[in-house]
Amino acid sequence: MASSEEHREEGEEDYGDVAELGALRQRQAGYAWADVASLEPAAAGRAVRVRGAAQRVRAKGRMAFLVLRQGSATVQCVVSGEAARFAAGLSRESAVDVAGVVALPREHVRETTQQEVEIQVQKLYCISRAVSKLPISVDDASQNEEDVASAKAAGKQLAHVGQDKRLNYRVIDLRTPANQAIFQVQSEVEYAFRKALRSEGFHGFHTPKLISGSSEGGAAVFKLDYKGQPACLAQSPQLHKQMAVSGGFQRVFEVGPVYRAEDSYTHRHLCEFTGLDVEMTIREDYSEVCDVVDRVFVAIFDHLNKNCSKELEAIQRQYPFKPLKYLEKTLRIDYCEGIRMLKEAGVHVEPMGDLSTEAEKKLGELVRDKYDTEFYMLCRYPSAVRPFYTMPCSDDPLYSYSFDVFVRGEEIISGAQRVHDPELLTSQAKARGIDVNTIATYIDSFRYGTPPHGGFGAGLERVVMLFCGLGNIRKTSLFPRDPRRLNP
Amino acid sequence: MASSEEHREEGEEDYGDVAELGALRQRQAGYAWADVASLEPAAAGRAVRVRGAAQRVRAKGRMAFLVLRQGSATVQCVVSGEAARFAAGLSRESAVDVAGVVALPREHVRETTQQEVEIQVQKLYCISRAVSKLPISVDDASQNEEDVASAKAAGKQLAHVGQDKRLNYRVIDLRTPANQAIFQVQSEVEYAFRKALRSEGFHGFHTPKLISGSSEGGAAVFKLDYKGQPACLAQSPQLHKQMAVSGGFQRVFEVGPVYRAEDSYTHRHLCEFTGLDVEMTIREDYSEVCDVVDRVFVAIFDHLNKNCSKELEAIQRQYPFKPLKYLEKTLRIDYCEGIRMLKEAGVHVEPMGDLSTEAEKKLGELVRDKYDTEFYMLCRYPSAVRPFYTMPCSDDPLYSYSFDVFVRGEEIISGAQRVHDPELLTSQAKARGIDVNTIATYIDSFRYGTPPHGGFGAGLERVVMLFCGLGNIRKTSLFPRDPRRLNP
Repeated sequence: MASSEEHREEGEEDYGDVAELGALRQRQAGYAWADVASLEPAAAGRAVRVRGAAQRVRAKGRMAFLVLRQGSATVQCVVSGEAARFAAGLSRESAVDVAGVVALPREHVRETTQQEVEIQVQKLYCISRAVSKLPISVDDASQNEEDVASAKAAGKQLAHVGQDKRLNYRVIDLRTPANQAIFQVQSEVEYAFRKALRSEGFHGFHTPKLISGSSEGGAAVFKLDYKGQPACLAQSPQLHKQMAVSGGFQRVFEVGPVYRAEDSYTHRHLCEFTGLDVEMTIREDYSEVCDVVDRVFVAIFDHLNKNCSKELEAIQRQYPFKPLKYLEKTLRIDYCEGIRMLKEAGVHVEPMGDLSTEAEKKLGELVRDKYDTEFYMLCRYPSAVRPFYTMPCSDDPLYSYSFDVFVRGEEIISGAQRVHDPELLTSQAKARGIDVNTIATYIDSFRYGTPPHGGFGAGLERVVMLFCGLGNIRKTSLFPRDPRRLNP
Repeated sequence: MASSEEHREEGEEDYGDVAELGALRQRQAGYAWADVASLEPAAAGRAVRVRGAAQRVRAKGRMAFLVLRQGSATVQCVVSGEAARFAAGLSRESAVDVAGVVALPREHVRETTQQEVEIQVQKLYCISRAVSKLPISVDDASQNEEDVASAKAAGKQLAHVGQDKRLNYRVIDLRTPANQAIFQVQSEVEYAFRKALRSEGFHGFHTPKLISGSSEGGAAVFKLDYKGQPACLAQSPQLHKQMAVSGGFQRVFEVGPVYRAEDSYTHRHLCEFTGLDVEMTIREDYSEVCDVVDRVFVAIFDHLNKNCSKELEAIQRQYPFKPLKYLEKTLRIDYCEGIRMLKEAGVHVEPMGDLSTEAEKKLGELVRDKYDTEFYMLCRYPSAVRPFYTMPCSDDPLYSYSFDVFVRGEEIISGAQRVHDPELLTSQAKARGIDVNTIATYIDSFRYGTPPHGGFGAGLERVVMLFCGLGNIRKTSLFPRDPRRLNP
C-alpha cells in the first residue's frame, strides 16, 4: 500500500477538475481500483480508488460528506482539509474520482447502501461536471410511489417526478435504484428465455424488419420508401419465422424489435417493443407449443426469484408489488371453460367473441381465487377471433389450436398452430376478406413441402412489467416509443 | 414394440395423403418418434416414426428408395409393396411421415448422412405436397462451388443455382446442408458473444431503432413519417448505448438490427444487418475496450472450432475454406506501424488518410506473413478519419483512441473511446462542419455528469462470412436486404 504522499509531484493538487485519464492515473497511482458494491469491512485500511457520481454532498464545518454512487451502490466519502470546500462545490451527479482509505465508520451510515464502510478521502478529482441546475434530481425520481400517493391524499406534496418529465431526462432518471434494477431484471429475463430455449434445442435467428408492401396483418404499420419500393416495418416476425421452419430449421426463436403504428394510448402498448418470438415444428399437437411456453416461462420466473432478489427488492422499494403467484406446471383451461367461469360470475361475454381487457382482468381474478395462480393459459380460442393463419381444431373448426397466456389478468403471450396448407390458408384468408394477392409470398412459401408447425410471441417489456406489477410499460422500456413520444 | 398390423383399423391405408395430425397419430400409434440425426445401429429392430422432407426417391422394380431429410441429416427409407408406387410419385421436398423398423443395410448407404442404418418402411404418409416442378432443387443448390468453377473452366456445365435465384426461393435454398450449417454457426456466434460478455459483467439492452430526425452520422438513412414527425431508422445504437452508460449502466451490449440506406453494391454491405454492439465505462485507457474485444472474439472463435466442427465441415463441403488463423492473445499494431509496413511493401498510402479496401487487404496479408495471424487490431487511427465523437489521443490529438479489427484482411469491428465532454464534442463536431443543432440531444446527454467510456460495434453476418471465408454477405443473412432486394 502506498500513501498518497509518496506519489505526489510538484504542482499536483490533491483535488480539482481533471478530465484526462492519463493524468488521473498518474495522480492516483498506488491506489487500487475498487467497485463501490464490493467494498467490505475486511478491506479497512486499504488504499482504493473509486469512480462514481456525486449523488449528494453535505458540508459540516471543515468536513464534507460525499455520497458516491456507482450503478445502484453508494458509499459515504469523508473529505477534510482544503478539498472539503472543493467537494462542497461539486454539482450533484458530477462524475468524480475518489482515492482514499477504506475505513469503518463509528456508526452505520444510514443513507448509503454501504453502511459498514466509508472512504477517508485523500484525493478528489472531478472528471465530468454536471450542470449545476439539474432538470430532475435522482432523489426525487427515486421516491416511493405509495408515499407520494398517501402524501397527496393527505393534501401534502412530496417531491417526485412525473412520468413524462422522467422520460424527457431519461439519462438522469435511469440512475435511480429502481431503474437500475428494472433493466437488470429485463436483461435477466432475456438471458433466461434464451437459456431455456437453447436447452430445448432452439436456435436464435434474425429476420428482417424491413419488408415489402405491408405486414401480414395489414393493420397500422410504419411505411417507408425503400430505394423506390414501398416498404414497411414488420409488425411481427410471423412470416419470416414460419419461412425459417419451412426452410428446414426445426426450432427457432428471435428476440428483436416489433413495430406497431397503432394509436394506442394505454399503459401496455408501445409503438416499438422487443418481441420474444418462437416457432417450431409440431409432431402431434399444438400442446407441444404450450409445453414449451410452460417450461420456458416457469424457468424465467424461477430464475428471477432465485437470482434477482436484490433487484426485485430495489424495484419494490419504489414501486411496491406482491410476488407473482405461479404453478410449477402451468394451468391450462379451455376458452369455453373461461367463458363459463365468467358467466357464473355474472360477467356478460359473447361465447364466440373475443374477451375485452376487463373480462380478461376479471377472469384472471377468478382463476387466481380458484387455482391460486396468476399465470395461466387459455386454450382453443374461437377461430373467428384469431388471425387467418391459425389452424382450426379438427374436431370443431369453430375453435382453433390457439392460446393466450395471462399474467396478473393481462395478456402476455399469444400462440397457435399455423395453417401450413396453402389451399386452406387461401380459403381462410378469403373468408376474412383479405386480398390474397397481397399475401401471395406468404402463401407461396408453403408450396414446397412444409412441416406442421406453431409458435408464440411475447413482449419483453410486458413480461417485466407484469412480473413486477408495474403499472406502465414505459417503465420497462429503456427509451420508450409511443404515439406521442419519439425522444430521446 | 408393436407391429404395425396390431394397430391397423378397417379402411385405413398404410400409405397416402394425410394432412391432419390427429389422424396421423392414430395410424402410426405404436411407433416411437425419432430424429433422423439420432438414429443408430443399436436401434436396429425398433419401430420408429420419422417426419421429414422427401429429398429424392428412386424406384427400382417393386421397391422405392426414399431419402428422408430432417435438418441436415438424411436417412434411406426402403419402401416395398403397393406403397412403393405411392413413394415413387411423391414430389421432391414434400413433407412425409414414415413409420417403420430401423434396419442395418447390407452395405453402407453412400448418399445419406446415416450410412449404417436405414428404415424399412411400413407406413408412409404425405403431409404436405410440394409442387411437382420446384423452382430450384436442393441438390443443385448444394453443389460444391469449386466443382462448379472447374467444370465451367473446362467448358462443361454443372447443375447449380445462382445467388439471386437462391434468394428468390430462399425457403428451398435454406434446406441445403451448407445453409443449415451457416445459420447454426451464426446462432452459435451470438451465443458465444453473449456468454463471453456476460462473464465480463455486461448486460444486454434494447435501444430504439425509430429515432427522431436523422441518425448521428447524418449519412444515408431510411426516413419515415412517425405520427406526423420526421423519423429515421437508426444507423447504429451509438447514441442510445452511450446514453445507457451515462444512465448509470457500467457495461452494456446490444444485438439488434442496424440500417444503412447506402447504395453499396459490394460483397460485404447490407441495408439491414445485425449489429453486435458494446459500450462500457473506461477506467484508465481505451485499451480496456480492446481487451474486451480480444477476449470476446477469441472466445467466439474457440467456441466455433470446439463445438461446431460438423457445421464447419458441412459449409466447407460446399464452400471450401481454410480455418481462420488467430492468436490466443490478439495482435495489436499501431496505425503508424501499419502505414510503415504498407510503404515498405511498396503500397502507396496517405499516412493521415483512411486505408482503402485494397490497402486493408494487403496489410492483412503482410500481417499474416509476419505474425501468422488473420485476426488483428489496428490502433490509434488518425483523428481526421474517425467520427467526431472519437476521443483524440492526449499525447497527440492528430491521432485518436480508436481501433479497427480485421479478419482475413477485411474490417469486422470498429471501436473507440468516446468524447464525454460536451464542449469538446461541440468543437469537434463544428470542426467537421456538422450543424450542432441537429445533434443537440446527443451533446446534451453528457451535461449531467458522464463517466469516460468507449465501445465497439461489429456485424454478425460479417463475423460468420469472414470466419468461414464465404465471399458474399448474402450467404450469411437469413433473408438479406440490399439496395436491390427487399424480398422475400
